[in-house]
Amino acid sequence: MIQIKIPWAQPDIGEEELNEVVDSFRSGWLTMGPKVKTFEKGLSSFLNVPYALAVSNGTVALDLILKSMGIGPGDEVIVPAMTFFASTSTVSYQSAVPVFVDIDPQTFNLDPNCIAEAITKKTRAILFIDYGGNPADYDNLLKVSKRHGVPLIQDGAQSLGAVYKGRPVGAQAQVASMSFHMAKVMTTVEGGMIFCRKKSLWHDMLKRRNHGEPAGKKYTHAVLGTNARMSDIHAGIGLAQFNKLPLLIEKRKQVAKLYDHIFSSKKSKIQVSTTPYENSSNAYFFYPILIDQRDKISQRLLHEYGIDTRIAYPMPLWKQPVYRSSRLSFHKMKCPVAEYVTSKVLNLPIFPSMTTEMINYVGQAVLNEVERC
Amino acid sequence: MIQIKIPWAQPDIGEEELNEVVDSFRSGWLTMGPKVKTFEKGLSSFLNVPYALAVSNGTVALDLILKSMGIGPGDEVIVPAMTFFASTSTVSYQSAVPVFVDIDPQTFNLDPNCIAEAITKKTRAILFIDYGGNPADYDNLLKVSKRHGVPLIQDGAQSLGAVYKGRPVGAQAQVASMSFHMAKVMTTVEGGMIFCRKKSLWHDMLKRRNHGEPAGKKYTHAVLGTNARMSDIHAGIGLAQFNKLPLLIEKRKQVAKLYDHIFSSKKSKIQVSTTPYENSSNAYFFYPILIDQRDKISQRLLHEYGIDTRIAYPMPLWKQPVYRSSRLSFHKMKCPVAEYVTSKVLNLPIFPSMTTEMINYVGQAVLNEVERC
Repeated sequence: MIQIKIPWAQPDIGEEELNEVVDSFRSGWLTMGPKVKTFEKGLSSFLNVPYALAVSNGTVALDLILKSMGIGPGDEVIVPAMTFFASTSTVSYQSAVPVFVDIDPQTFNLDPNCIAEAITKKTRAILFIDYGGNPADYDNLLKVSKRHGVPLIQDGAQSLGAVYKGRPVGAQAQVASMSFHMAKVMTTVEGGMIFCRKKSLWHDMLKRRNHGEPAGKKYTHAVLGTNARMSDIHAGIGLAQFNKLPLLIEKRKQVAKLYDHIFSSKKSKIQVSTTPYENSSNAYFFYPILIDQRDKISQRLLHEYGIDTRIAYPMPLWKQPVYRSSRLSFHKMKCPVAEYVTSKVLNLPIFPSMTTEMINYVGQAVLNEVERC
Repeated sequence: MIQIKIPWAQPDIGEEELNEVVDSFRSGWLTMGPKVKTFEKGLSSFLNVPYALAVSNGTVALDLILKSMGIGPGDEVIVPAMTFFASTSTVSYQSAVPVFVDIDPQTFNLDPNCIAEAITKKTRAILFIDYGGNPADYDNLLKVSKRHGVPLIQDGAQSLGAVYKGRPVGAQAQVASMSFHMAKVMTTVEGGMIFCRKKSLWHDMLKRRNHGEPAGKKYTHAVLGTNARMSDIHAGIGLAQFNKLPLLIEKRKQVAKLYDHIFSSKKSKIQVSTTPYENSSNAYFFYPILIDQRDKISQRLLHEYGIDTRIAYPMPLWKQPVYRSSRLSFHKMKCPVAEYVTSKVLNLPIFPSMTTEMINYVGQAVLNEVERC
C-alpha cells in the first residue's frame, strides 16, 4: 500500500457546504429546486452570460449541448487532440465524428492555425477547452469560427475562475459547458452547468434536461431528452463553494507562483507552460510541467516521495483504445505538438490548502528526480 | 394558485437519511465510494442477483445497458406502447429504433402474445417494465425471448418491492435497470441502479459508468462511456431508505387495500387493474384506475378537492410530439389496448404516510366525480 503524503487534489469542503445540505433537508426540497435556481443565477451573473442550466455533470452538459445543436450521425466536430475524453466521447455519443486537431505548444489549447485544413462540408462545430485553467486563444478561435461559419462550443470544465483579456472565462462562446467535479476549482461533488447566450437554445436544453418535457406538461415529450437534473443537495454544496471561489482561486495562484519560482530558480530542465495571454489569468486547475522520462519520474514521485501526480493526458485521443479497437468513427490531422506534449506532460499537486512546505517538498522532489533521471 | 391538499406522492425522508449524509461529510468521502458499494451490495442481495451498479439515475442506467449490449444505429428494440418516455428515449439515444408493441389489458404490461409479429432480423432486445409496480408476465416474456433468441431487458424503475411467483421483482432478466427518483417506492433523491447476472457485462458497464476507464488506468478509455456515477451523498440517502423498504411497501399496500375496498363497495363505474398474478404482489408505485371523462375528472379533483393525480401515461408513445415531429425513427404495431388505457387511466395519490382519512377523502371525491360526469 502506497502512502500518499501529498494528494494531487484536495477539495476545500466542510461545514458551510454541510449547512446548505442540512437546510435542504429541513425545507424538504431535495430534488432540483430553489438552490439549483440560485446556483444558476450566481454563476450566470459571475460569468456575465444570460442563461445557465445546472446539470448532473460536465459530460452530460456537453451531451445536451450537442443534441440541442442537432449534431447527429455522420456530422463532424473539431476537437483538440489533447483533452479529457468527455470532450470527444460526447461527440461519439451522438454517432458523430470527432476530428482531432493539434494544440498550441505554449498553452496546450486547440491551435486556431490548425483548424482551417480540418474543416469539411460536414463540420458542424469547433469544440475547444481551456487546458488546466489557462484560457484558449479565443479571439483567433472566433475569427476561424466566423470565417468558416462553424459555431464554437466551449468546454469550460477546467477554466472557472480564469480571466481572458479582462473577462471571466468559461462562457465566452455562444454555448459552453462547465464541470463541478470533486477535483475541480470549485465543486458540487458531482455536477455541471451549461451557459448560453441564445434564449431559444436555452429553452430547448431546459426541456432536454428533463426528458424533453415542456414546463408544466407532465409526461409530454417534445424533444429527445434524458434525466440530466442536478439535485438541490449538490446545488447547495455548489452555493457554499461559490462563496469561496475568489479565495480558492487566489490560493491556487499562490501555489503556482511558488512552483514557478522553484522551477525557474536554477538552470532547470523543466519546461513550465502556464503563462496566460496578456491581461489574462490562469485558474490553475492543473500545474503542468514538461519533462523527459515522465512516466518513470511520476512513478518515483509516488513510490519514493508519496507525491500523487496526474498525466493529463497520456496520449492524443485517437490513440485511446476506444478509438483504436471499436467501430467508432474519427478523423485525425497531423498533431506533432499533441504527440510531443502527451509524451512529456506531468501535472503536479495543486489545491488551496497546500502549504509552502508541501509545495517546496514537491518542487524539490521533482528537481531531484529530473536531475537524477 | 391551486392549494394541494393531497399530493400525488410524498417521500418518507428525514433524519435517518440526513444522518447518513452528515456521516459522509465527517468521513470526507463524498464522491462515489464506500456507501455506493454498500448500497449496491444491499440491493443485489435483496434481489438475489450477483452484480449491481449504482448510477446517477434510472434513465442513465438504461442508456448504459443498451450501449453495453452493443445496440446502435438501425437496431430495433421492442418496447411497450405505454410506459415512461425513458424506456424508449434511451433506445433513440443510441440512434436505434423503438418498436411499440401493445400491452396486456389487466396489468398494462407488455403483452407477450403481441411480441412475435414485431420481431424482425434487426430486433436486438425486448424491453419490458412492471407497470406501476405490478409484475409483468415474466414467464411468458422469457418464453418469447428464448423462442426468438432475443434478450430481455427489464426496466424495473417502478417495481422495487414487488414479488413475482415468490421472488422479488426488479432484476429477473439477465440485465435490469432501476430508478430511485424522489417519487419512487424508495429514493436516493436522484439515482438508479443496474443489475446483471453476467460478470463480463457488469465489467463492461463498470467502465462505461466512469468514462470507459478500466479500474486503475486513469485517463485511459477502453469503451465508450460517460459520467454515470452516483455520489456517496445520494447513496447514503438510499441506504437509510433501504432500511425502511419493507415498511414503505407495507404502508403502500395498506393504502391500496383501502382504495380497493372503496371502489368495490358499490356498483362502481371504476375499473381497478392492480391485481397481481398468483403468488405475486404489487409494489403499488401507482394506483391506477380506468374511468370515462378522465381529463375532466382529473382537473376537477385538482381544482375542487385539492387532489393531485397523474395520468401515466396520456398517450401511446408514438403519439408523443418527439416522435411525430422529429426525424427519430420508430415502428408501431397495432396497439388497441394501449390506445384504450391511455385514454382512461388515472393514477391516484399513494404514499406511505397517507392516512385513512386522506384515502377516504380521495376515494369519495373520485366516486362523486365519476357519478357526476
